Amino acid sequence: MTDTLKDRVAIIGAGCTKFGDNFDASYEDMVVEAAFAAFADAGIGPERVEAAWLGTYSPYGGNGKASVSLADALRLYDRPITRVENYCATGTDAFRNAAMAVASGLYEVALVVGAEKLKDRPMRGLGREGNHPYKGDGLTAPGMMAMFANRYMHRFGIGRDVLAKVAVKNHHNGSMNPRAHFQMEVTEDQVLKAPIIAWPYGLFDCCPTTDGAAAVVICRAELARQFRDDYVLVKGIGMAVRSGRPWYDPCDEHIGYPATVEAARSAYQMAGISDPVKELDLAEVHDCFTWPEISHYEDLGFCRKGEGAHFIAEGRSALGGDLPVNPSGGLKSFGHPIGASGVRMIFEVVTQLRGQAERRQVPNADLGLVHNLGGPGAVACVVVLGNP
Amino acid sequence: MTDTLKDRVAIIGAGCTKFGDNFDASYEDMVVEAAFAAFADAGIGPERVEAAWLGTYSPYGGNGKASVSLADALRLYDRPITRVENYCATGTDAFRNAAMAVASGLYEVALVVGAEKLKDRPMRGLGREGNHPYKGDGLTAPGMMAMFANRYMHRFGIGRDVLAKVAVKNHHNGSMNPRAHFQMEVTEDQVLKAPIIAWPYGLFDCCPTTDGAAAVVICRAELARQFRDDYVLVKGIGMAVRSGRPWYDPCDEHIGYPATVEAARSAYQMAGISDPVKELDLAEVHDCFTWPEISHYEDLGFCRKGEGAHFIAEGRSALGGDLPVNPSGGLKSFGHPIGASGVRMIFEVVTQLRGQAERRQVPNADLGLVHNLGGPGAVACVVVLGNP
Repeated sequence: MTDTLKDRVAIIGAGCTKFGDNFDASYEDMVVEAAFAAFADAGIGPERVEAAWLGTYSPYGGNGKASVSLADALRLYDRPITRVENYCATGTDAFRNAAMAVASGLYEVALVVGAEKLKDRPMRGLGREGNHPYKGDGLTAPGMMAMFANRYMHRFGIGRDVLAKVAVKNHHNGSMNPRAHFQMEVTEDQVLKAPIIAWPYGLFDCCPTTDGAAAVVICRAELARQFRDDYVLVKGIGMAVRSGRPWYDPCDEHIGYPATVEAARSAYQMAGISDPVKELDLAEVHDCFTWPEISHYEDLGFCRKGEGAHFIAEGRSALGGDLPVNPSGGLKSFGHPIGASGVRMIFEVVTQLRGQAERRQVPNADLGLVHNLGGPGAVACVVVLGNP
Repeated sequence: MTDTLKDRVAIIGAGCTKFGDNFDASYEDMVVEAAFAAFADAGIGPERVEAAWLGTYSPYGGNGKASVSLADALRLYDRPITRVENYCATGTDAFRNAAMAVASGLYEVALVVGAEKLKDRPMRGLGREGNHPYKGDGLTAPGMMAMFANRYMHRFGIGRDVLAKVAVKNHHNGSMNPRAHFQMEVTEDQVLKAPIIAWPYGLFDCCPTTDGAAAVVICRAELARQFRDDYVLVKGIGMAVRSGRPWYDPCDEHIGYPATVEAARSAYQMAGISDPVKELDLAEVHDCFTWPEISHYEDLGFCRKGEGAHFIAEGRSALGGDLPVNPSGGLKSFGHPIGASGVRMIFEVVTQLRGQAERRQVPNADLGLVHNLGGPGAVACVVVLGNP
């Protein structure tokens, strides 16, 4: 019998840069902006931080940024700083490790930063084959994620128009978010007529290459009220890793992500959730491409396998629907600076739970979900956050 | 007031490959060998592992190995696996995160693996300038570590002969270790006459480029006796990060590593150690080059700053001395597969505390220290382990 993390860790501050082509900001500039926004939000100075976690994916191929870069950017010296990397689930896993450390009692207050600078030099893997873990299979990220989408579309008889509805919804949400990379609406027709990247994905089925950073300050739950009344509690965390080469697994039907199913099962158990659509008020899920969001509806238990097309088509995941998904605009429209995304999703859910999401606010949001997916769908991390 | 980790986490199994030019073993082969040795040592199967941490430094430039590689190598699916990277302190920081997670109560049994494959393709940074965080300063690892050594030697008026004594001691110890990369003695004369790599370091002042993996199984301390009687307890952990560019700090005298001083202070406080030479029975310290070991004697409080030359010259750190340092042979002779080293040091201390170190056994070893240093001396992690 193991303990849970439920109600033992609180988020007392959150910050996030504008996501986009941040050519005028260095990696350190973005880290400083996000972290000091989180400090200001928590009403603390950096000296109150006892330990920090940095989620960043591509430091040596890209920018050479790891624990010492966070120390230097924030002048946060003589304290422990851990770099966590877990493919595109880097941000939530950094948060998870920080939350467990606080729950262990070793630290009262900790900082989690997710950051990535993808625009300064070409990113490997996304759009072309590079020095990448999957290169043995000759796969790019869009190509890899497209194989699953094609299989699913064949199996359930859906077309590209269903995928396009995800892009339309998330661009609509992102158009109301001042921090989103793309703050523009797109029509289903525009999505369908865009140049193909990897069939069935056209340009608007893919998330962009983005710079950005996000940060949260967490503390032991029993201390949270010292910092603010409207803190947010960790209700559940679940994580699961599967094979890095799922296409070799004859038992996998390739119509979804079993890692997400397992991560959600474990997070729901911890949070005491039995009916996610009824109990959750919003969800930020990993829409690196349009089809995965449809699969996530199913893998996260919002509907049954094969019913995701109805979930989007009936507007159930739209703002105002049964369970708004990606009110922030999602990776699709907010952008996806890899290590930053999970922490940015947490930032959005905190903003929604506090009722500060302005035009994209989900009314009376009280319980929200964050879902990060990494590798070829092999790594999933689910975090459930709620008001006290 | 924060809690401590003291006596809350136990090591119940440890495994380690032969370190060296492991051209006949893949990264996965080494991970499997180390992890299954640790499972066998703990008397468990992999299914008992609830969560895992992988410490590996150079996956994308080198081998593309992160969390999913551990899942695939061990068929350890549907569980959380985190990759931690913290320069050369990667192994101990992976252990630290796993220990905090177990102390949080979330897992009963967890696995920590450190692994690196450095020989299959040229390593960047070590010996030549590469795509490396320090490249802006034009520094290689030997060159960077040599600057500090030159400053220290100038300040305290010592010669290369003092550094050579560290190489002689650690090669002697390694000659008695069947897992060490170099199992050969060297003489002071051989060390002094070897080709210069970066003054004052000759070839035998530098640790080798090595392949290897090590693993430990940890559990909640109160469950340890279910697995074995001679388990080992975590007594203290301390970690500190400083600036990645210490040479720009006018307040730093560059005669030691302040991160180590802070990490040791914090670990000693947790473990209740006031006189490390009297209380510790052995120490595995980060001798990536010979001079750093001399600095570590001082920074870890074994003697005062400037007295390290006497500590080595008088044999106080030799097997049979006041406080044997690197009985395993150290990085110098055992080798330094970056992410593996910290976990390998923990393996050595566990072996010594159980009295299983054969010809290099420290008699009645009851309390041992592990010290990992990363970056340009900017990251230090200290772990104190003891018998129940």
